[in-house]
Amino acid sequence: MIDKTEIERIKQVIVEKLSSIHTLKRVQKINQLVDEIAGQEERETESLSSEEQVVTPWVVSGKIDHDKVIEKFGCKRIDESLIDRVERLTSRRAHVFLRRGFFYAHRDLDKILDCYESGKKFYLYTGRGPSSESLHLGHLIPFLFTKYLQEAFKVPVVIQITDDEKKIWKKLEKEETKRLGRENVKDIIACGFDASNTFIFSSYATVGGKFYENVVEIADCITVNKANSTFGFTGEVSTAKMIFPSLQAAPSFSSSFPHKLFPDEKKNIPCLIPCAIDQDPYFRLTRDVAPRLDFIKPALIESKFFPALRGNNGKMSASDANSAIYINDSAADIKKKINSAVTGGRDNLEDQKKYGANLKEDIPFQYLSFFLEDDAELEHIKKEYGEGRMTTGDVKKRLVQVVTEIVERHRMARAAVTDEMVDAFMTPRPLFE
Amino acid sequence: MIDKTEIERIKQVIVEKLSSIHTLKRVQKINQLVDEIAGQEERETESLSSEEQVVTPWVVSGKIDHDKVIEKFGCKRIDESLIDRVERLTSRRAHVFLRRGFFYAHRDLDKILDCYESGKKFYLYTGRGPSSESLHLGHLIPFLFTKYLQEAFKVPVVIQITDDEKKIWKKLEKEETKRLGRENVKDIIACGFDASNTFIFSSYATVGGKFYENVVEIADCITVNKANSTFGFTGEVSTAKMIFPSLQAAPSFSSSFPHKLFPDEKKNIPCLIPCAIDQDPYFRLTRDVAPRLDFIKPALIESKFFPALRGNNGKMSASDANSAIYINDSAADIKKKINSAVTGGRDNLEDQKKYGANLKEDIPFQYLSFFLEDDAELEHIKKEYGEGRMTTGDVKKRLVQVVTEIVERHRMARAAVTDEMVDAFMTPRPLFE
Repeated sequence: MIDKTEIERIKQVIVEKLSSIHTLKRVQKINQLVDEIAGQEERETESLSSEEQVVTPWVVSGKIDHDKVIEKFGCKRIDESLIDRVERLTSRRAHVFLRRGFFYAHRDLDKILDCYESGKKFYLYTGRGPSSESLHLGHLIPFLFTKYLQEAFKVPVVIQITDDEKKIWKKLEKEETKRLGRENVKDIIACGFDASNTFIFSSYATVGGKFYENVVEIADCITVNKANSTFGFTGEVSTAKMIFPSLQAAPSFSSSFPHKLFPDEKKNIPCLIPCAIDQDPYFRLTRDVAPRLDFIKPALIESKFFPALRGNNGKMSASDANSAIYINDSAADIKKKINSAVTGGRDNLEDQKKYGANLKEDIPFQYLSFFLEDDAELEHIKKEYGEGRMTTGDVKKRLVQVVTEIVERHRMARAAVTDEMVDAFMTPRPLFE
Repeated sequence: MIDKTEIERIKQVIVEKLSSIHTLKRVQKINQLVDEIAGQEERETESLSSEEQVVTPWVVSGKIDHDKVIEKFGCKRIDESLIDRVERLTSRRAHVFLRRGFFYAHRDLDKILDCYESGKKFYLYTGRGPSSESLHLGHLIPFLFTKYLQEAFKVPVVIQITDDEKKIWKKLEKEETKRLGRENVKDIIACGFDASNTFIFSSYATVGGKFYENVVEIADCITVNKANSTFGFTGEVSTAKMIFPSLQAAPSFSSSFPHKLFPDEKKNIPCLIPCAIDQDPYFRLTRDVAPRLDFIKPALIESKFFPALRGNNGKMSASDANSAIYINDSAADIKKKINSAVTGGRDNLEDQKKYGANLKEDIPFQYLSFFLEDDAELEHIKKEYGEGRMTTGDVKKRLVQVVTEIVERHRMARAAVTDEMVDAFMTPRPLFE
């Protein structure tokens, strides 16, 4: 219940405000507005129930409890049997990110597997908002994982570069977001996508035709109040922010793409979206809207947040260069950044030997669990480090090797990406052949 | 000042509502919301000051006082000296709609004339929301007037067919709005636009590229609150309605068009918009936004509302077929509709002779003032009918002749419009040549 003195305070304020208006006839309207305030308060109370945890597509902060996020968003946990089924259907070991529980939540992944098992195709959709010159390790994750899914299921991939989003939210110049987008596309291509089966597109360049038609349909199903409550918008919001959710939703429906991308007889092709779980609000909305438009709800496979070097609170931020290892960092930078990472090692060697490292708080170990392919070696480090027979220095040293190798490999792949390749990936062309 | 007992009532309602919320900590927020309520009330009080008069792009109702509309919107009246200047610059008599005061308001028309006088070009922009199979006489007016401006100033015209708008507001099927749009284009072409200097485009077909880039820029300058207050949106509004004002704004800026339409060196070409005054809110917003984007504010030349057959309250409505004469009405329909129009004639011949007709309330006479080209004949009818020497029947008979002739002429012109002509008008191509 609300505090009585606060009600009094509020009453006072309201009377004060209202008495400055000349005519105010419609009590009903006030009634309605108070309903809205009440509703908004309730939603906010709900979304802030853990007080520390904030997860939106733009802000991830506080100590994240990934289980609570699942529960709040209403997605499902990916269990062992689902991973087994993926392995069986694709005849290959599940990707490290999947078998080690980093991609941990889903919506309708089982339906996508049913569809695949019955011989029907689906497509993958992921994206990138181009706000920085280079990607960092956390940015790479959905692309590396999507590339694995493409290889394993042999399906087309569409990748949206939301240059318009960065204009709207980050206030970057339009031409700058386009330039960054193109730079980012090179990093994305360097992840090894199949050139014959991948379409990378900029929002600015693609909105129009069927895409715009679907944007209008989608936007028309989403009210301003719904957008506000889903994304936690408050105060003065630009109308551009109101339309963007429909822009991010549109690629979930195969009919949004130019005719030649998907053959005519396959207008309603199921879509699977690999993404970090903070993108769930967009696609929750998209899934709500789909049946009203006779479209198939997109399925989702969702990851936890990749931890920042400075600790587990929140995801890495492109605006804080030291919170992340960038793909264009030098070997010396990488070493320096890893050496200054937050660890769960003890204050002195004696304590370390006695208690072992706190692996849950140890960023170097967590990074190894993402990037060290060898399960046996990872298990060995987990045991030795966790029980105090290995030092933080040893673990950091191994991580520097692993990350430097990945970054070096990526750098070489990126150097081989030509402008012609970028153009080829970004040209609409038949994918389902 | 607000009624005291009402404040009490409101307080009671608010306390009741708020006590059902579990936690409500932020008095500040309530504070802010009450500010918004107060602001909204004030705006509404203002816009409803005459109680009967409502003018928005979607609703025109009540007894319209066109002088009040100008005052409220903040446009300027077109005076004799401005009409004289138009006649001098174009070396021809001003159009009936202009010299008889139907196009009566403007924004920056003087600047457009300055620009023209100094040898620089400008372009004209008008549009049509395709919600009916055929146009009625009121729909024709902006096109006939724009055609006159095109001829007189020898400038390009762009005409937006807002098929997306009718999907969003009228809930028409997307394909149906496109079909109606194409039908309407035929009527528009039949008005006699210069094929080499007129670009007619559908929103659905054109959004994308530079156009979408400008839509994002514009939408980003318009907040949800601003859209709500400008257009009087209340309650649950779809996000599609939030983006549409930017869609209607974009053609006001020459940089929105495909490169080939306007030559590169003429990126920022002044724009003059002939429209009915209910469209002013769109372009008021557009003009607010322009300087922030380094664009030239579009100029406006604005008409009164064409009266409905049933009287002066409001404009004709496409959803009430009997309120208007349609371009595809038969001669018999036209006669029937005009004979049942509201008139200012007296109840019997005796009174008519004694008092004369009340021309202000007489729809047939008003229609004649739009469509009878001959000033001397119009003056004669005004005098004879107004002073009781002419009967309502005589005036109606003359109007039937005039309208039937116009409709017949239009019908023939429309019959000559081929699909190839429609395609030609709708193909982006250089206009400034």
